[in-house]
Amino acid sequence: MNIGIMTSGGDGPGLNAVIRGAVRKGIRAHGFSFTGIRDGWRGLLEDDTHPLHMVDVRGLSGRGGTILGTSRTHPYSQGGPEQMRTVMERRGIDAIIAIGGEGTLAGAARLADDEGMPVVGVPKTIDNDLDGTDYTFGFDTAQSIATEAIDRLRTTADSHHRCMVLEVMGRNVGWIALQAGMAGGAHAILIPEFPVSYEQIFDWVRSAWDRGRAPLVVVAEGFVPEGVEDQVADRGTDKHGRVRLGGIGDHLAPLIEEATGIETRAMILGHLQRGGSPTAYDRVLATRLGMAAVDIVLNEGWGQMAALDGTDITRVRMADAVDNLKLVPRNRWDEVQVLLG
Amino acid sequence: MNIGIMTSGGDGPGLNAVIRGAVRKGIRAHGFSFTGIRDGWRGLLEDDTHPLHMVDVRGLSGRGGTILGTSRTHPYSQGGPEQMRTVMERRGIDAIIAIGGEGTLAGAARLADDEGMPVVGVPKTIDNDLDGTDYTFGFDTAQSIATEAIDRLRTTADSHHRCMVLEVMGRNVGWIALQAGMAGGAHAILIPEFPVSYEQIFDWVRSAWDRGRAPLVVVAEGFVPEGVEDQVADRGTDKHGRVRLGGIGDHLAPLIEEATGIETRAMILGHLQRGGSPTAYDRVLATRLGMAAVDIVLNEGWGQMAALDGTDITRVRMADAVDNLKLVPRNRWDEVQVLLG
Amino acid sequence: MNIGIMTSGGDGPGLNAVIRGAVRKGIRAHGFSFTGIRDGWRGLLEDDTHPLHMVDVRGLSGRGGTILGTSRTHPYSQGGPEQMRTVMERRGIDAIIAIGGEGTLAGAARLADDEGMPVVGVPKTIDNDLDGTDYTFGFDTAQSIATEAIDRLRTTADSHHRCMVLEVMGRNVGWIALQAGMAGGAHAILIPEFPVSYEQIFDWVRSAWDRGRAPLVVVAEGFVPEGVEDQVADRGTDKHGRVRLGGIGDHLAPLIEEATGIETRAMILGHLQRGGSPTAYDRVLATRLGMAAVDIVLNEGWGQMAALDGTDITRVRMADAVDNLKLVPRNRWDEVQVLLG
Amino acid sequence: MNIGIMTSGGDGPGLNAVIRGAVRKGIRAHGFSFTGIRDGWRGLLEDDTHPLHMVDVRGLSGRGGTILGTSRTHPYSQGGPEQMRTVMERRGIDAIIAIGGEGTLAGAARLADDEGMPVVGVPKTIDNDLDGTDYTFGFDTAQSIATEAIDRLRTTADSHHRCMVLEVMGRNVGWIALQAGMAGGAHAILIPEFPVSYEQIFDWVRSAWDRGRAPLVVVAEGFVPEGVEDQVADRGTDKHGRVRLGGIGDHLAPLIEEATGIETRAMILGHLQRGGSPTAYDRVLATRLGMAAVDIVLNEGWGQMAALDGTDITRVRMADAVDNLKLVPRNRWDEVQVLLG
Repeated sequence: MNIGIMTSGGDGPGLNAVIRGAVRKGIRAHGFSFTGIRDGWRGLLEDDTHPLHMVDVRGLSGRGGTILGTSRTHPYSQGGPEQMRTVMERRGIDAIIAIGGEGTLAGAARLADDEGMPVVGVPKTIDNDLDGTDYTFGFDTAQSIATEAIDRLRTTADSHHRCMVLEVMGRNVGWIALQAGMAGGAHAILIPEFPVSYEQIFDWVRSAWDRGRAPLVVVAEGFVPEGVEDQVADRGTDKHGRVRLGGIGDHLAPLIEEATGIETRAMILGHLQRGGSPTAYDRVLATRLGMAAVDIVLNEGWGQMAALDGTDITRVRMADAVDNLKLVPRNRWDEVQVLLG
Repeated sequence: MNIGIMTSGGDGPGLNAVIRGAVRKGIRAHGFSFTGIRDGWRGLLEDDTHPLHMVDVRGLSGRGGTILGTSRTHPYSQGGPEQMRTVMERRGIDAIIAIGGEGTLAGAARLADDEGMPVVGVPKTIDNDLDGTDYTFGFDTAQSIATEAIDRLRTTADSHHRCMVLEVMGRNVGWIALQAGMAGGAHAILIPEFPVSYEQIFDWVRSAWDRGRAPLVVVAEGFVPEGVEDQVADRGTDKHGRVRLGGIGDHLAPLIEEATGIETRAMILGHLQRGGSPTAYDRVLATRLGMAAVDIVLNEGWGQMAALDGTDITRVRMADAVDNLKLVPRNRWDEVQVLLG
Repeated sequence: MNIGIMTSGGDGPGLNAVIRGAVRKGIRAHGFSFTGIRDGWRGLLEDDTHPLHMVDVRGLSGRGGTILGTSRTHPYSQGGPEQMRTVMERRGIDAIIAIGGEGTLAGAARLADDEGMPVVGVPKTIDNDLDGTDYTFGFDTAQSIATEAIDRLRTTADSHHRCMVLEVMGRNVGWIALQAGMAGGAHAILIPEFPVSYEQIFDWVRSAWDRGRAPLVVVAEGFVPEGVEDQVADRGTDKHGRVRLGGIGDHLAPLIEEATGIETRAMILGHLQRGGSPTAYDRVLATRLGMAAVDIVLNEGWGQMAALDGTDITRVRMADAVDNLKLVPRNRWDEVQVLLG
Repeated sequence: MNIGIMTSGGDGPGLNAVIRGAVRKGIRAHGFSFTGIRDGWRGLLEDDTHPLHMVDVRGLSGRGGTILGTSRTHPYSQGGPEQMRTVMERRGIDAIIAIGGEGTLAGAARLADDEGMPVVGVPKTIDNDLDGTDYTFGFDTAQSIATEAIDRLRTTADSHHRCMVLEVMGRNVGWIALQAGMAGGAHAILIPEFPVSYEQIFDWVRSAWDRGRAPLVVVAEGFVPEGVEDQVADRGTDKHGRVRLGGIGDHLAPLIEEATGIETRAMILGHLQRGGSPTAYDRVLATRLGMAAVDIVLNEGWGQMAALDGTDITRVRMADAVDNLKLVPRNRWDEVQVLLG
């Protein structure tokens, strides 16, 4: 059996470890062969593929990025499923392992469920917003980098008696902000799931200041303050009502400074969160998911993806996983309240 | 209500984060006060205690070690429960949060279950050998440090065409070796739960060598090779039959070199694994466990400890948790086989 | 003799190590006592001071920030030298060690040379722009953080076939960009000392792209492209003609994308470069400078600062050091050319 | 012109950066071509060589180890200079760049000076024991790793009220111990250049303990205590009189524990110090030295090596550099005294 393997959507630490786990497991346990597909669906649609051997995946467990490249090409563009079938037949590809986030897996689910194609998935989210799995690889690395950034910013904030606002990833969910905020000892944590008012933010900042601390605010990029329309005269928001004035971090910093009188600076962590060598946690999880995906192929579990449940690797239907965002639940939000201010 | 809090047994990254989580939660959510007990049970037996305020725990989430100190004093020494009750009464301590490993929690369970004392627990294991919880804090930091060590040793091994043996912690269980070995791409992983023969070890080393790799062996300190008695003429083993010739790493290296002809060096990671700043994962887990312990006190759940189940914090009876070691299960061992050699 | 010690100007990794080195040397070698002055010149002008003992500086060699706080208060404000003399007399302060950058040392030089005050200096620059010393502490940490950022950005750039622009510190000099660019393997390095044209930048980007690399551009914040006036219609520059359109990184990225057709993203490293624990190099240098400053006080070398010359700690007149910026010289710029593109 | 390039002797972080710097400079600035020689002198003697192109050195600045491999083969073995000349002629190699430590450069000097062969050098020492250059690459990475180890060990030592002994590299010189000891805040620093008595060591340990600190001892592997013969009954020393009882760290720990009554543990840092990704400092220095070596070849400066003098890259005769060890000088030893105890 020949398996085509691809990485699609945004880059994330651990993609290479998935590829390595899948290829080693497939070749050594089942005698499969592998075809590397370049840049996600693009490579499959444009027949940009090449054989993938054991030697190609050596030393990959700790290397950031993806040796297969990635793109945001949609699977139903450029000829779609029909064109894919042609390429698969031409290259002798019997099944596809698609590694990617919500968009990639939604496409993969549709190809498997609606078109009857032999596709399985491996979930990847930096943001940890994917349902059906406790965590996926990439998130732990992102929260580690964000925590290290807080550690560094704290010393400067303390020395200068300043407030620092750190904007981290999370368009729809606040997992990175929540966890890095807990880990780094932030005084305000702002996440999309639980909008708070400007006044609440200012109160947290003042409370920390009054206890002699340099206030640290961690904000997910998708956070929208309650009452934002009062502050944003020129309607600089996107269609979801999200603040789009150079980012929420840059939006908040001057407002905090004006309201509290405390000098305030913003820092956008951005792309630093998705690059570089994965943490040990992410390497292990990615390797296990890659190996499990091969077993799903062996069992012809088309439309399924490998997932984490507690400490076990399980299988879930991709269609179920992509239906819902995994939001920060109310109890995690309540839990963190005593750490704020 | 006044809560006495202590750290007992071996040091581990995250102890300070537990203390901070408990104190902040107790003071801000429930209006409790706290008494810091120095050096575990010793401080309680010898009345070495002091009030613990919010200001004492600030900035602790990322700091290694424990501000309370630790010791291996046994709770039934020096007057035992009776003496503890005297000190608790004198200092007005209404309940105890004991943070520690298997030994500490076994003692705490006995105090709660047999003596009726108001004691709850927070589990801490570097080795991840404690049942009743998916993971505890400290383990992720240890596996990260071990993985980083493998990354460093690999480059030197490659340059010198050498085999490297890295001995990591794990007297009874092989979790650190298993996970760091997967994360770092080791060619042999040796753990107490699944003894293998010398010949198997040599085969893994030769197999990696024949593919042009510098062989990397990760061995848990408690691993005992099958057939060890043939190699250890002078019976240099402890009462459990464990090799005690300067450690298993130093025992294996010359045997590998002799059998395979490949120059081999050993490195003992030792104390590096339990010190320093905790990872983001460990900080979050430790903080959550500390906060949950306070809730257990509020509910008078004497004899219980906070635990991790998937992504949830739960409560389990300490007596149940300390009954069994959490061994690496057969399926995790089978899973890793395709990565070896 | 009682020495007042202060940190002034921008925060930088190693300030605490200087304080520790000075206090330990002063107390143990010469029997001096120390007075900590809060927030630079502000603390001296407003009599915000406190005794500083051995116990106050323990464990400080690796801690970021400054336990004394810092500010940008000018020494000639709020009563100036006269007011300082009053406070020094009131507190029994016999000499001042001022730790800071160009502005701080210029002030200290003037106080010593023009007012005859007993002031010595310790140079601190993140940017490495201070003459009279080979390096000062803080710079090595900054170049390390910038290099690590490049390492992380590279993997994402490679995976996405993107160009990344990293903006690092350096208003007047390009040392961080030059060194981190060399260390991280950047394809374009843009520094204030050697303006290049937009076309040159695009050529470097295209050259890397044509060899199959994801182009990496490192730019110092003070870099101004040749011909900037053609690109900046609305004159969004400061009085020095510097581009001020949300920063040079954000200015360049869309221009590169438009000119080359390669998707391009910018990242501003900002405050991350000046916080957190110093590198070993910076800790050693800071400690040595702190100890040397005490010896200068002993010799009544008013107006002098401790400096690094090769591997030796020397003394130079502050007035000489602050006269000139230490620019990246022509030979260092020529040297790096073969690494670009 | 075709340049043969090799790495010889012990592995060190930065070797790959030297190779990359030399190859890029040679090809792009002077139109040279390169031949990679495998495993040092062995490859030249056994004709184990291959062409080295630009593409072979891409991405190497931050990668640990050496893509050329290394060995300790002596240049005067296996046919020696005559055999080398034969291979050079056969492969069209016009000059040799030899990258290595004292042994390698001594051999290279002899080949150039005595045999008239076209050989230049690039110095590499982890220990920083090479004369003629302020620092060489590898040392900064080693001191960083040792400092990080001290940071980690300190938290555990503090928690357990223990003394820790860290043994670091340095057979003949104490640079790593001196600098990491200063950076990490060690209470005793033991180096070969300045033997001290057991009693002095115990005094430093007791002094730290009496001030409430967990004593930290950093010892270079080549340190020999004064009066060692009284402690080492069985003459377990090598021909230089060095203690060889499982290493100086393991020798000292029980003696400290016995003399002071403080529980004491030893940790041998070993191979961790020479592997892995180099620091930014080492990457820049290595790159500059590699580029400079090509210029020496261009000028036919046979017998010379590239060196660091302050911030400048210079040339020195290899024969001069290898004549003397660069010891820690008396003034650096005196300087550190106030930090001990």
